[in-house]
Amino acid sequence: MIPRKFARYLPILDWGSRYDRAALGNDLLAAVIVTIMLIPQSLAYALLAGLPPEAGLYASIVPIMLYAVFGTSRALAVGPVAVVSLMTAAAIGNIAAQGTIGYGAAALTLALMSGLMLLGMGVFRLGFLANFLSHPVISGFITASGILIAASQLKYILGVPASGHTLIEMLTSLVSNLGAVNFWTLAIGLSATAFLFWVRKGLKPLLRAKGLSPAMADALTKAGPVAAVIVTTATVWLLGLDARGVNIVGAVPQSLPPLTMPSLSPELLKQLLIPALLISIIGFVESISVAQTLAARRRQRIDPDQELIGLGAANLGAAFTGGFPVTGGFSRSVVNFDAGAETPAAGAYTAVGLAIAALMLTPLIHYLPNATLAATIIVAVLGLVDLSILKTAWTYSRSDFAAVAVTMLVTLLVGVEAGVSSGVLLSILLHLHRTSRPHVAEVGLVPGTQHFRNIHRHEVQTDPTVLTMRVDESLYFANARFLEDSVTNRVTGDTALRHVILMCSAVNEIDLSAVESLEAINNRLSEMGVKLHLSEVKGPVMDRLKRGHLLDELTGQVFLSQYDAYQAVLEQKDAVAEQPASAS
Amino acid sequence: MIPRKFARYLPILDWGSRYDRAALGNDLLAAVIVTIMLIPQSLAYALLAGLPPEAGLYASIVPIMLYAVFGTSRALAVGPVAVVSLMTAAAIGNIAAQGTIGYGAAALTLALMSGLMLLGMGVFRLGFLANFLSHPVISGFITASGILIAASQLKYILGVPASGHTLIEMLTSLVSNLGAVNFWTLAIGLSATAFLFWVRKGLKPLLRAKGLSPAMADALTKAGPVAAVIVTTATVWLLGLDARGVNIVGAVPQSLPPLTMPSLSPELLKQLLIPALLISIIGFVESISVAQTLAARRRQRIDPDQELIGLGAANLGAAFTGGFPVTGGFSRSVVNFDAGAETPAAGAYTAVGLAIAALMLTPLIHYLPNATLAATIIVAVLGLVDLSILKTAWTYSRSDFAAVAVTMLVTLLVGVEAGVSSGVLLSILLHLHRTSRPHVAEVGLVPGTQHFRNIHRHEVQTDPTVLTMRVDESLYFANARFLEDSVTNRVTGDTALRHVILMCSAVNEIDLSAVESLEAINNRLSEMGVKLHLSEVKGPVMDRLKRGHLLDELTGQVFLSQYDAYQAVLEQKDAVAEQPASAS
Repeated sequence: MIPRKFARYLPILDWGSRYDRAALGNDLLAAVIVTIMLIPQSLAYALLAGLPPEAGLYASIVPIMLYAVFGTSRALAVGPVAVVSLMTAAAIGNIAAQGTIGYGAAALTLALMSGLMLLGMGVFRLGFLANFLSHPVISGFITASGILIAASQLKYILGVPASGHTLIEMLTSLVSNLGAVNFWTLAIGLSATAFLFWVRKGLKPLLRAKGLSPAMADALTKAGPVAAVIVTTATVWLLGLDARGVNIVGAVPQSLPPLTMPSLSPELLKQLLIPALLISIIGFVESISVAQTLAARRRQRIDPDQELIGLGAANLGAAFTGGFPVTGGFSRSVVNFDAGAETPAAGAYTAVGLAIAALMLTPLIHYLPNATLAATIIVAVLGLVDLSILKTAWTYSRSDFAAVAVTMLVTLLVGVEAGVSSGVLLSILLHLHRTSRPHVAEVGLVPGTQHFRNIHRHEVQTDPTVLTMRVDESLYFANARFLEDSVTNRVTGDTALRHVILMCSAVNEIDLSAVESLEAINNRLSEMGVKLHLSEVKGPVMDRLKRGHLLDELTGQVFLSQYDAYQAVLEQKDAVAEQPASAS
Repeated sequence: MIPRKFARYLPILDWGSRYDRAALGNDLLAAVIVTIMLIPQSLAYALLAGLPPEAGLYASIVPIMLYAVFGTSRALAVGPVAVVSLMTAAAIGNIAAQGTIGYGAAALTLALMSGLMLLGMGVFRLGFLANFLSHPVISGFITASGILIAASQLKYILGVPASGHTLIEMLTSLVSNLGAVNFWTLAIGLSATAFLFWVRKGLKPLLRAKGLSPAMADALTKAGPVAAVIVTTATVWLLGLDARGVNIVGAVPQSLPPLTMPSLSPELLKQLLIPALLISIIGFVESISVAQTLAARRRQRIDPDQELIGLGAANLGAAFTGGFPVTGGFSRSVVNFDAGAETPAAGAYTAVGLAIAALMLTPLIHYLPNATLAATIIVAVLGLVDLSILKTAWTYSRSDFAAVAVTMLVTLLVGVEAGVSSGVLLSILLHLHRTSRPHVAEVGLVPGTQHFRNIHRHEVQTDPTVLTMRVDESLYFANARFLEDSVTNRVTGDTALRHVILMCSAVNEIDLSAVESLEAINNRLSEMGVKLHLSEVKGPVMDRLKRGHLLDELTGQVFLSQYDAYQAVLEQKDAVAEQPASAS
């Protein structure tokens, strides 16, 4: 028997023990469909990453099998995806020239580092790091990446040499080489692109109108890229277009994934540190949202920390078998799910299918034109481009809009790593800025009730000797000084004041900085002859306060409810007012 | 007449128009006391910053006058302070060698950059940036700086050459040079240190016991450093100790502050960018807390943004008159306040006193031993060292402790800039981590009331078809995914569920990421046949939600109170339960 603690790390033990013939049948069918779809996609993403086409196949075989063992999603299909491939090209492009041995080796190292980071985050339960990527930043980044990817593929459609990692570099490089456009390449590229767009938009309704079942129509639609590959490859071969300047995939080794050893040069490791971290986090975020979405449809559970381990294992697999960084892809996972995959075994069968392809079918793609692969990429990534997020964010709030806009602009104009990093930094800064000026309302008693409301919005009862301020935010270092300033400035000019009550009903947490600010407020008020009271302090906050000195030094009291506080303070005042009378 | 918008930037117009003879008398008396105290302190901090002694005097003259015009604090005394002088030495030490022209020029540039940054933060109201320095980070940094400063002065007490910017570098350098200790220097250094400690701890009680008034005892105590300067200078001169290896201040020019032009070399500006930013923020935080504390004692107001302008102007003054970065100092401000300074004019009179000193008294300090200045620094900064913050933070919370400990260790072992930066980064990360896993409680109805409480802590009433989750935190990007995971995972296994109510009474704010997570939750629940409802949504949060699509897509409703929500949902259930009965 395997102890439970191992079982936690091996979800396969759970579903594997209940695997039956029905599940096998469904998984096999899904695997066939996904395999057919993955062949052109894998070749295309290798091209996008700047690697030889077989790397795309290799990156889809062992990783998918390792994810089947360690991952928790039943339907996730792991392999090369567009955004991660783009980030791979950007990271390695600065270090080695495309086509060199160093380039391929760096891709392996990047997969190794990303795998180790994901594993580490999983084992130490650091998945929360992915939370720092806000939705606006991710949306902005993915949209900008889609545009960048499409722009990077134009050179294959036009058949001209071009280079550059930013949108402006790419476009200027393209424009300056426009004279070298190859007619045949352009003809193939444009027709493949037009065909694939039509397949995506027009084919399915047509097939449904012809009376095909939705599932059948869907499957035929997904086969579009395969059809494009077959037709254009045959055309190039039959017309001998490669001799007329059409770039083709060329000789691809017939081989199972090779055993490879990533380079461990310290210099390389250092250069790839930040890119590997960003690739890991972006890949994880993309993968987990696909996994959660699909799992919810069947009321299945996803364990984010175990997902990190599954993706980490997949990337280690890629590193040692000639691949490059991989993650759970959206389109392939949806196909897998829609095709009826029931368990991760479907992924394993897909891997077998791709292994057979790598071993047997590679001679068939010798004449496959790069323009066709570029067309499949362009059509796929334009689905990622969603400029409506700019409008949504603008309507919602200026700071969310700023996060989207900065992420998009920096990604397009500077690069993918700078884009993600600046988006993350900006969202953190904006969040801190927002919470650094919490809403602080002066409140008074609603007559006839025990409720207290904002004095500027309601007809309420107040007393010149009592000031009640309600803080609508947890208190921590970023807003501690603001509270100090607000209270001190409000009290300074008001010589009638004798009591300040801080109403803490919306304070969920309080850190040491805030406690020290409250102590400072208490001291300053004390020097002005004003007492500080607290009301409606939540349990966890009270527990914290008991650990500091504030409660010993507080000139006033802590009241359970604001009404109690107000009553008690008014009674004190009356008692003081009566005293001189009785003494005289 | 001067328009009001100018008056905002010139607080002098406010207090200047009401200046009278009584205020003049008080301000003049305070100025005399502060001038006497500032002479040795200014020389000492110049030594600490690695600059010639006159730079300390110059940095105390024009800056203090400019602050008098632009600052809002009545009692703040601006000039060189220990921590900022240490940071200056650390920043310039990497760029130029002490004693070179380049070193002095870099100090001017640093003051210029710091002045411009402070002015910029003031004009653009960016004072909130200072909030990122939490109390634990500041306390840890100031304590560690105090230790570093004391260690850096030991070489003057021992009379040996030594170097280094980290504690370990300094101590190893000292130890390796111990053979070269100069007896006379050590004798002067130790006796000055012992004398100053005794003045600080023992003299005041003694004077009070002899019947002196507290004010007089205080004034005499503050004059301790001046006495030490006079006695040791006379000793060196009379015994000719400078010929026996005692390092002395030497020739100091007799001059008013010179007009200087900071270097604007782009390379230098780039190197000093981060140090200048850190010096500005640390200086501002130190200054504003002194100003706030003193202002509260007299119910005066401090405007943080205007303080930035005042400090910015002071630093620009330092940059163009042979000084180095300055800020509001704690000890000198307290002396100024205690001596009865009523308006910033006291600062201006102090400046006049110091100008006279710079012009006339510098020949008198020719034989002043560096060891005496080092002794005044050591005694002053050991007052900053407060290791109890470690214990306070440990008792309060692990994350506050981590912030203190990391700031202290990194400051001591790596350097001041790395120390502050790592402290700030760590506190931000810990804050995000804390809020990334908000407290989410499952609640039920307390029987006989309309209150809902945690089902694990109270005897409450629940229904198997209804799940109510209360989120005790504002929802934003760092915890949006956690909420998704919590709800999805809780609902997945529970097939009886038909309604999920999110109780939002503690949600003060909600950003676009959180709204999109709520949409995702709504969709996933919808696919499981479960409705999502919201209850007790605050006004500002509701306003936000109305800007997005969530309310259109929500499968359930938004209820004013949790009790309404619970009742409505149970009625729906009864209605559904009755339907099949009536249909059959």
